[in-house]
Amino acid sequence: MPNRGITSGASLAQLRAEVLEANLELVRRGLVLFTFGNASGILREEGLVVIKPSGVPYEKMTSEDLVVTDLDGKIVEGDLRPSSDLATHLVLYKAFSEIGGVVHTHSEYATAWAQARREIPCFGTTHADYFHGPVPVTKPLTPKEIRSDYEVNTGHAIVRRFAKLDPLHMPGVLVAGHAPFCWGATPTEAAHAAVVVEEIAALATITITANPKARAISKHLHDKHFLRKHGSTAYYGQKK
Amino acid sequence: MPNRGITSGASLAQLRAEVLEANLELVRRGLVLFTFGNASGILREEGLVVIKPSGVPYEKMTSEDLVVTDLDGKIVEGDLRPSSDLATHLVLYKAFSEIGGVVHTHSEYATAWAQARREIPCFGTTHADYFHGPVPVTKPLTPKEIRSDYEVNTGHAIVRRFAKLDPLHMPGVLVAGHAPFCWGATPTEAAHAAVVVEEIAALATITITANPKARAISKHLHDKHFLRKHGSTAYYGQKK
Amino acid sequence: MPNRGITSGASLAQLRAEVLEANLELVRRGLVLFTFGNASGILREEGLVVIKPSGVPYEKMTSEDLVVTDLDGKIVEGDLRPSSDLATHLVLYKAFSEIGGVVHTHSEYATAWAQARREIPCFGTTHADYFHGPVPVTKPLTPKEIRSDYEVNTGHAIVRRFAKLDPLHMPGVLVAGHAPFCWGATPTEAAHAAVVVEEIAALATITITANPKARAISKHLHDKHFLRKHGSTAYYGQKK
Amino acid sequence: MPNRGITSGASLAQLRAEVLEANLELVRRGLVLFTFGNASGILREEGLVVIKPSGVPYEKMTSEDLVVTDLDGKIVEGDLRPSSDLATHLVLYKAFSEIGGVVHTHSEYATAWAQARREIPCFGTTHADYFHGPVPVTKPLTPKEIRSDYEVNTGHAIVRRFAKLDPLHMPGVLVAGHAPFCWGATPTEAAHAAVVVEEIAALATITITANPKARAISKHLHDKHFLRKHGSTAYYGQKK
Repeated sequence: MPNRGITSGASLAQLRAEVLEANLELVRRGLVLFTFGNASGILREEGLVVIKPSGVPYEKMTSEDLVVTDLDGKIVEGDLRPSSDLATHLVLYKAFSEIGGVVHTHSEYATAWAQARREIPCFGTTHADYFHGPVPVTKPLTPKEIRSDYEVNTGHAIVRRFAKLDPLHMPGVLVAGHAPFCWGATPTEAAHAAVVVEEIAALATITITANPKARAISKHLHDKHFLRKHGSTAYYGQKK
Repeated sequence: MPNRGITSGASLAQLRAEVLEANLELVRRGLVLFTFGNASGILREEGLVVIKPSGVPYEKMTSEDLVVTDLDGKIVEGDLRPSSDLATHLVLYKAFSEIGGVVHTHSEYATAWAQARREIPCFGTTHADYFHGPVPVTKPLTPKEIRSDYEVNTGHAIVRRFAKLDPLHMPGVLVAGHAPFCWGATPTEAAHAAVVVEEIAALATITITANPKARAISKHLHDKHFLRKHGSTAYYGQKK
Repeated sequence: MPNRGITSGASLAQLRAEVLEANLELVRRGLVLFTFGNASGILREEGLVVIKPSGVPYEKMTSEDLVVTDLDGKIVEGDLRPSSDLATHLVLYKAFSEIGGVVHTHSEYATAWAQARREIPCFGTTHADYFHGPVPVTKPLTPKEIRSDYEVNTGHAIVRRFAKLDPLHMPGVLVAGHAPFCWGATPTEAAHAAVVVEEIAALATITITANPKARAISKHLHDKHFLRKHGSTAYYGQKK
Repeated sequence: MPNRGITSGASLAQLRAEVLEANLELVRRGLVLFTFGNASGILREEGLVVIKPSGVPYEKMTSEDLVVTDLDGKIVEGDLRPSSDLATHLVLYKAFSEIGGVVHTHSEYATAWAQARREIPCFGTTHADYFHGPVPVTKPLTPKEIRSDYEVNTGHAIVRRFAKLDPLHMPGVLVAGHAPFCWGATPTEAAHAAVVVEEIAALATITITANPKARAISKHLHDKHFLRKHGSTAYYGQKK
């Protein structure tokens, strides 16, 4: 990831620019249809979140259209309604203190695995390069959780699923019956993770078609690839 | 849906422009091959229907090429033959008084499910956002219905299938062994529904590949998502 | 098919132009990779066949590069070797006197069904509009037929398969373990048939994924659609 | 293959240009995502290898960014780190003296078959034109081989798999749980092989979907097609 995003210590204007770019990246990569999907970013010190407005076409969106809220979802800047998934983003920012960006898409393969309510086994090194384990699936919400504060409860279901998982070693989740949420240290990395999850899901679909009994790679190979790219002994890419 | 179409109270010239645009949208979205597919719209007060001509390439089509008929299919304006599916469109306009546009395509995934004669279960929220139930399939026509007035009888098969369904809560159908017909309050919304049905069918295909035992989402979740976008308590998108 | 090609009574220059265009259509439709695939046309009265040269990239090909041969494959005009599949084309022209163009591709879905050695059942009306029956598959060649005159024998295998079939009611075939050959009254129609066979194969693949027990449509519906487009009672498209 | 590459006897500048072009070909053909994948070439007499730098975006890459190393992986020219897969490339160059280029991608279908750990049967002539046998799969590495010198050992696993195979009659391999490595007489041919392996894998996936009991073509047909394009009796393409 040559450009890992610039959020840390950035100004609100810089964050607006990066969040707009992350939203447009979803379009360029074919991850969203119509106005589905949304990307956000956070300024941790100021406690400000920048998110896509609800139902606005990507081709017309400018950084001025983005909505700025505080961590309670109160609008600080902007004339448009924020994405209806804002509440889910906020729960993730509160629970996962190390993340700086969140992305939600209905990308085809990842959404289909979310609909299949099947975690994606680590069938190969493309997966292992990014996810330190299978791509997890949340448990379905209860009728009560669906009825009121649905988007907040979607966030809680994700956080519960990550009770024993490190969000930066596992930059995304499949929400059962819904679609993926992804994240990263920056909005740029969150959008990158959304592209990767879609690719992992596509590869897994073809893998089980080619061999319905396909099995996950060994823990040794999984660790090797993950640690080639992450942590203190990483040796992929150029020195930072 | 930021632009829901302008048909209501529109002039014939406006309707021609919108119907042309709906036809071209089918091409842009990759839903039609060659001259397959057609979109139409209706001026309810005047009882006039505007529809694509039969077998004319989309790239050369102008709004002048569109054919205007009355609700009996009598040509009021235009030198070309109307789409051979006109009779089906007319049956739908007569039976579903709340619709203003109809679209027929042979888009790949939706057509394949029509060929499979399998209704599309609501596997997730992308589906639930638009269809308040599974995407229905018609019953096959009898030999007699096929032999004479085939296109009229195709329309009747759709209407029979919707005896207990609300067309605006279920903006499309799979005609068994044939392909989808979709509709909406305007031609723009009908084309939108055609894109959505194709996406729902693609997602469902991958879903059952990932998990042959995949099940529909709960009625609670289904209702929640449908009502987030439709009806008096909708909170998706910007205020109208 | 608004433009059905102009071969009948055309000059050699016109046929060269149409054959070039048919070859380029294969590229535009994504039916060929590298230099795979070839289209040809025939002037019946002169007994001259125009065909793509072997192994020349499409992007550089001009109508001057096309090779003209007689029905025995003797080169009449051109400095390049003709396509290595020429002999198959010639057998088809000799056996099917009503065709004016032949196209061979390795398009993905049709090639896969040829590899699967499974005829494509008529699952729906898209298929029925063009093929009056399942898309047929040839029998495998014998070792002897493969060893000598392989391309000629490929043609014979196709002709044998069509002993009881009308080539213009069935404008293509899957050669077992190889790929499709298609044809039509003109090179333009042959290229059109190649696009259609690929689409039919793609639809059939998704159909059996959606429902492994999917069945062919009724003979009544099949006949209805085929005859809507073909024969004296056709009523699809504009009057000719 | 009209352009088979110019490596033999080429200057280092020419090789740099060809290796850059081979890397960009992977992008044009949709075989790589982000910075995944890498192509290299070798000057046999000088013992110099030119390879893509690690983690650099293709759209910004120039021939100056490429890294030149000797056969021990010592950097001779270049300021950037070489691809982390360099060691695998070097093992292949040392073991397969007839190859002049190596390409590694994570292209979707080929990677999925590598993940499925299933060799690709020769289902048809597209495959037979390039691979004289099934596309082979390596054996998984042992924990020890993964722990240290992982990339070197990946190369060894490939070489072991080719103990009885001719690398130029079998221009690629699926590394179990990882992805394909391909090669050829030049970097251009190696990139060509990577495109072909992806196509073969895609065709095979659809073939087994259309017919789960699909079988390989006969040895007679396989030999015929391979030898039409390769060896002293080849008659495909123009005379060289």
